[in-house]
Amino acid sequence: MRKSIAIDMDQVLADFVGKAVKAMNERLNLGMTREEFFKTSIQKLHPEHMNEFISMMNEPDFFRDLELLDPNSVEVIKELNETYDIYIATAAMHVPGSFLAKYDWLREHFPFLNTNYFIFCGDKKVVKADYLIDDSVGQLKSFTGQGILFDQPNNASVTEYPRVKNWQEVLEYFQQLAVVK
Amino acid sequence: MRKSIAIDMDQVLADFVGKAVKAMNERLNLGMTREEFFKTSIQKLHPEHMNEFISMMNEPDFFRDLELLDPNSVEVIKELNETYDIYIATAAMHVPGSFLAKYDWLREHFPFLNTNYFIFCGDKKVVKADYLIDDSVGQLKSFTGQGILFDQPNNASVTEYPRVKNWQEVLEYFQQLAVVK
Repeated sequence: MRKSIAIDMDQVLADFVGKAVKAMNERLNLGMTREEFFKTSIQKLHPEHMNEFISMMNEPDFFRDLELLDPNSVEVIKELNETYDIYIATAAMHVPGSFLAKYDWLREHFPFLNTNYFIFCGDKKVVKADYLIDDSVGQLKSFTGQGILFDQPNNASVTEYPRVKNWQEVLEYFQQLAVVK
Repeated sequence: MRKSIAIDMDQVLADFVGKAVKAMNERLNLGMTREEFFKTSIQKLHPEHMNEFISMMNEPDFFRDLELLDPNSVEVIKELNETYDIYIATAAMHVPGSFLAKYDWLREHFPFLNTNYFIFCGDKKVVKADYLIDDSVGQLKSFTGQGILFDQPNNASVTEYPRVKNWQEVLEYFQQLAVVK
């Protein structure tokens, strides 16, 4: 039976932070840097703007035009898709206004993926897959299969999971597994 | 550890068929009955109207005002929620326009449920739960935990799964399990 790899969206496939920082700066003239956003949270940096931040994320188009975090992800996932069932597992329930934009974004950038394997959820303990690639340590802890940590500034100190820095390293991780088998 | 029950939406919690038949009849003057809809498919009954049917389901509000299939589901799920983790697992990916309406519908009728346990998916083999209550035999076959068939006219001949006819029977099924333990 084919094994399955679940893949997170924000900060693994899509550059959510890039758009969030740019849009918040444009709208509210905050002069916030990407590094500041990662080091702390909007809640701590700009508690007075939390409502705008949440409203902005729930705008129907906000997630529609995020940049690919690593354009190489397209080719790597296409290749992994030959051997594994590829699931996309995104914690979308805290931003219910984002559902359709996320779906359309996936269809645009990864048209070869099976939409029956898209999972919009909250806590990823509900996802049944062999692997999960995620930048969130909390989600990897919840998940019951093998977690793979996608490197981002806010998870730099985590050591419990194999770490991948980009999509080339994801490919190498699974190539290595195939050799070990 | 608490066990988990995943629950399907359409024809288990929400009366999708009731609205679909009424709306198609109103819009296209089809005079279709609920029984006809169940016995066959729109594709066979009215292939000439498949496009309208799909467009209608993708209207942002279509799923927002479905009736509860069995109003008793609210009290039963509230009670089960004391002992089990309750997940809502709906195959929404073939109707991506329905996401937000389905979310809002759940929040209205089951405000006590944890939204982190809502799962909008396609194939329910991606759902990790101990039980799944569903009217679709295909989904119960895909699911890897214990399936429970929610009785509907189109699954009347199925014998592979425990069958529940309404939400009182769902409650009794789990009460019986507790006694057996």
